[in-house]
Amino acid sequence: MMIREATAEDWAAIWPFFHRIVRAGETFTYPVDLTADTARDWWLLRAPNRTVVAVDDDGTVVGTAKMNNNQWGNGAHVASASFMVDPDRAGRGIGRALCEHTLDWARRQGFRAMQFNAVVATNTPAVHLYESLGFRVLGTVPEGFRHPVHGLVGLHVMHRPL
Amino acid sequence: MMIREATAEDWAAIWPFFHRIVRAGETFTYPVDLTADTARDWWLLRAPNRTVVAVDDDGTVVGTAKMNNNQWGNGAHVASASFMVDPDRAGRGIGRALCEHTLDWARRQGFRAMQFNAVVATNTPAVHLYESLGFRVLGTVPEGFRHPVHGLVGLHVMHRPL
Repeated sequence: MMIREATAEDWAAIWPFFHRIVRAGETFTYPVDLTADTARDWWLLRAPNRTVVAVDDDGTVVGTAKMNNNQWGNGAHVASASFMVDPDRAGRGIGRALCEHTLDWARRQGFRAMQFNAVVATNTPAVHLYESLGFRVLGTVPEGFRHPVHGLVGLHVMHRPL
Repeated sequence: MMIREATAEDWAAIWPFFHRIVRAGETFTYPVDLTADTARDWWLLRAPNRTVVAVDDDGTVVGTAKMNNNQWGNGAHVASASFMVDPDRAGRGIGRALCEHTLDWARRQGFRAMQFNAVVATNTPAVHLYESLGFRVLGTVPEGFRHPVHGLVGLHVMHRPL
């Protein structure tokens, strides 16, 4: 597996699993009926922000990450990032590789920390992954997310100094 | 003082104090060199979100607030809001009236809570106002804001159930 810059041409390969994840409504605070065009505008970021894809040995896109400043102005020294991994490829370390990649990027760009604003508390694979990479929960928005199966659950704000 | 819907025509009266507040860089995570056009696009929200102005007895615009969903999709039941009060009119209860107005709006719209994502920890008038209105600090991003006078200070995430 390698991680490379995402291009507009990658969108056709990203959208099927992106759509599946967003439509399930269990892990992202995106509209569950997000259209492909809006999703592409939100996900494929321009420099100095960045979007990458994780590509299997045969060239298949198996995951993607976007990375950006979390605030502007005098809050612009904290980065943020988001990750999607094809659910059919879960458990193979793709999410971890993508997260490590964004941390490297943020360090190189001179960010002082990385922050995730809305990690669904029941998304334990993600929470454990982030914790294993040095993130901690700064606080939890009580009942901040309406999970389609578990009902109202917390939304973690997670953070890691760089 | 009354609070009414903001119109495009109000922007000329909002921008002078808005610009002064943003340029000072002490309380908002906006670019300090934000242009009037971008600021107007960011601040004047369309329905179902909302922007209001606080108007003095002589019709002068003395403050403004915007209110919106803080996340989309399955996180869209939590509202957020932002406030600007003309610094020359500080300490007269304008911020409190605007904040109470947004809480009423959020309740009427069916939101379950209100969340502020980036309250500068040194902005004690704002922190105390929000606490007096039932908000509490869920967590603080350490060194999340580069204050032009105080250096790196915390950014509070504040929350109030409705």
